[in-house]
Amino acid sequence: MPTALEQISALQHKLYALQYALNCIELDSSTVAPKKGYTGRGQALEELSRSHHALLTDSGLLALFAEARTGTLTQQQAAELDELERQYNETSRIPADEYAAFSRLTSEAVTVWEQAKATNDFALFCPYLEKIVDTRRRFAAYFDPQKPAYDVWLNQFEKGLTTQRCNAFFDQLKETITPLVAQIVAKNATPPTLATQWPVAEQRQLSAYLMNRLGIDSGHCMIGESEHPFTAEFYKGDVRITTHYHEADFLSSMFSVIHESGHALYELHTGDTLQYTCLAGGATMGLHESQSRLFENCFGRSLPFLQGILPEIQRLFPSQMEGVSAEDLYRAANVCQPSLIRTEADEVTYCLHIMVRYQLEKQLMNGELAVRDLPAAWNAQMQEYLGISVPNDSVGVLQDIHWAGGDFGYFPSYALGSAYAAQMVAKMGETLDLDALLLQGDFAPIREWLSERIWKYGKMLAPDALLHNAFEGEFDPKFYTDYLTKKYSELYDLKA
Amino acid sequence: MPTALEQISALQHKLYALQYALNCIELDSSTVAPKKGYTGRGQALEELSRSHHALLTDSGLLALFAEARTGTLTQQQAAELDELERQYNETSRIPADEYAAFSRLTSEAVTVWEQAKATNDFALFCPYLEKIVDTRRRFAAYFDPQKPAYDVWLNQFEKGLTTQRCNAFFDQLKETITPLVAQIVAKNATPPTLATQWPVAEQRQLSAYLMNRLGIDSGHCMIGESEHPFTAEFYKGDVRITTHYHEADFLSSMFSVIHESGHALYELHTGDTLQYTCLAGGATMGLHESQSRLFENCFGRSLPFLQGILPEIQRLFPSQMEGVSAEDLYRAANVCQPSLIRTEADEVTYCLHIMVRYQLEKQLMNGELAVRDLPAAWNAQMQEYLGISVPNDSVGVLQDIHWAGGDFGYFPSYALGSAYAAQMVAKMGETLDLDALLLQGDFAPIREWLSERIWKYGKMLAPDALLHNAFEGEFDPKFYTDYLTKKYSELYDLKA
Repeated sequence: MPTALEQISALQHKLYALQYALNCIELDSSTVAPKKGYTGRGQALEELSRSHHALLTDSGLLALFAEARTGTLTQQQAAELDELERQYNETSRIPADEYAAFSRLTSEAVTVWEQAKATNDFALFCPYLEKIVDTRRRFAAYFDPQKPAYDVWLNQFEKGLTTQRCNAFFDQLKETITPLVAQIVAKNATPPTLATQWPVAEQRQLSAYLMNRLGIDSGHCMIGESEHPFTAEFYKGDVRITTHYHEADFLSSMFSVIHESGHALYELHTGDTLQYTCLAGGATMGLHESQSRLFENCFGRSLPFLQGILPEIQRLFPSQMEGVSAEDLYRAANVCQPSLIRTEADEVTYCLHIMVRYQLEKQLMNGELAVRDLPAAWNAQMQEYLGISVPNDSVGVLQDIHWAGGDFGYFPSYALGSAYAAQMVAKMGETLDLDALLLQGDFAPIREWLSERIWKYGKMLAPDALLHNAFEGEFDPKFYTDYLTKKYSELYDLKA
Repeated sequence: MPTALEQISALQHKLYALQYALNCIELDSSTVAPKKGYTGRGQALEELSRSHHALLTDSGLLALFAEARTGTLTQQQAAELDELERQYNETSRIPADEYAAFSRLTSEAVTVWEQAKATNDFALFCPYLEKIVDTRRRFAAYFDPQKPAYDVWLNQFEKGLTTQRCNAFFDQLKETITPLVAQIVAKNATPPTLATQWPVAEQRQLSAYLMNRLGIDSGHCMIGESEHPFTAEFYKGDVRITTHYHEADFLSSMFSVIHESGHALYELHTGDTLQYTCLAGGATMGLHESQSRLFENCFGRSLPFLQGILPEIQRLFPSQMEGVSAEDLYRAANVCQPSLIRTEADEVTYCLHIMVRYQLEKQLMNGELAVRDLPAAWNAQMQEYLGISVPNDSVGVLQDIHWAGGDFGYFPSYALGSAYAAQMVAKMGETLDLDALLLQGDFAPIREWLSERIWKYGKMLAPDALLHNAFEGEFDPKFYTDYLTKKYSELYDLKA
């Protein structure tokens, strides 16, 4: 008879294998799978997810955890038990039939949302979103009936996060960013223009060059192509990223590749002993986004980095790059302009898009806003935060998939990630000559810095502890607002 | 409480999902996965295979099958029960620890075989192959201690096949093919030459053109690239093929694509009701190879087919195809020349390579040949069947992976498939004007012929019944030898 710890290890191996299979199937489906093979894939995914769920809701688990805790545990073993017990609780508190019904609801809702977005028909999507909001509010009470529903979901995506902390964070952002954007808009600057034909074959070569420059071993990380860029983590020895090439604009894929490389590096540097356990991989959404945005924005969109890769871009695109200096490239990569679509937003206005979503989903979850009133509320917020009017719901409230998928509390982690990243850069800069390293493409010291403080710990430490490792102090959004203010004041020649 | 039939249906859905995952991971690993991610993949594959094995060896299954049989069953339900019971018996008769040990042995042996092949060192591989042969002989006795071991394994790959039937088949082949090859060799004809630079980008376009011409819907079947071409069957709505492009020779990939398309068409046309059951997909190895070889050789290497696709080849490769007629292409695609490597052999000498392996593995399994004497026996057989001397074991007895993987009894199905294909063509030709259809690229009547007689039945009918459907009579290798004799007598202007 295997010991409790052996059984817990075997359970984690099973969960790992199912998760590996689910990742592989999802990656395949988004990249190379034939378009009409969805029925059988859905069937397979449903079965495998059911097996995964069944492993985590086994009624014997709590006794097993208790038995394991009677012995002496290493720090890692204790963390594994905590994490598994957390997953058990999360999964078990929702009755199985309600869980299954919600899966079906969101799966249908995503299809309806696609149609509603395509035809600018919020009314079509409205009853689905109403059911989703109701269900999420009910589920929140299963976790903690004392807490406001939105707090439950914030904590889900970013352990320890509360509405109170979020409010403070976003208030501080609003105070700085809104006037900054207003100043930039007032400048009415003409954005620099680049060529509009960038052959995809050379863009593919640029992707390989960039990944290599950031220190990604192609033996452990390959790139594919999909409609929307993403990262798929199989395990620390195999991570995939994807991009989408636009012939008219090479910067789009270039920054996607750098962004996803940030996610990939985090996963690739998980500590060896965490492999195949529930502690492997990035700690939270916010921390993951901090790494992708650190690489994409703080490093990738910096002048020294762009200076360093300029020769390779010139080599690949000699005619397109004729007469384009590093400074020109830097300006083209950092145009700030309020716009309708979050995923196409620049570094500054991006967090305003998040704030709009934050305000609205908080009100939805806490019962202060009815779903039918959402489009009007959306449009009002876009006016308030970004100063633009929304011409229709397709490019407004219907633009993101998240709510159709049932994800509330996810959006704030995008903005938090950016803020974490800025503070990491500040801290890193105390001991590393970042400008020189970025210019030379010498990412080894940067990887080591991040690896030692964050990456190698996987989910073994709480997010707050990881941030403390990195910051050697408390999180302070001022690093982020200072970073944006300094960078964009210089770019747009603003008065202090 | 679900009924026995409901439980059996649920079991098949679980098996389907695990098989889907295994296929997806294997396809990924051979096409786009990073090269150094094998440890975690091995871990995942082992867990998923273990789950698959556990489902099929559940001690309650026999009682469940018996219970299900007490009710009235449809033909399909009865066939599902038979097939599941066959799989249960096959899997359960080998003790779990011996099964696991054999998996480890063959996994190690494949690695050692790769090294032995690379360094021409049979002695390195010899002890592994000895253990594999011993284990396979022991396992055969678990299935049926009365039967010669080799008969057990023949029946495994091709239900109903015996040494006796194989002997008769190969004797008849030998009688015709050996003198045919001798006549061709005596002609000492100069093979036609084609250009030696065929850009891969255009070869990729040719692949898409060919798949479309054969009637493959790209919404249900995509092509990838791998070291060795193969077909991966997810389910009838999603089948993948792969090819390998050689810049120097476009015919290599072209015929791989047609070959794998034959496999794919078979799977894509499985009857709808068989989906997600153990009866879905091709019936046996021999039948599968019959479809791939039918398309590759009987259709693909025919003059009318090549005439029909000539304009597209000329369009894609104008300079390479300058002055090349359909007749030239036909001759280039049908050069007959004894050579060392099976996978590169032409249509005629291919079956001689199979005969060499057949003789040797039969003797190994039946204890008439010691593994240490295998290289000498191999070389003697190559001399006897193909009239060539083997310079070293790397291009001799070490060339194929099959035995390292523990597969004995697999090789004959390649030759049988070719013979089945020739008889199908003869039968088809009684009602279809094949030359006209191949010239026009009108494969719809051909697909319908095959679908109605073979494809749609999946594994629901026994192989003999499927062949009877196709032939409307008994299998007779004379169709195959006649086909080869006629085709190659004309090509090489041989006297009757």
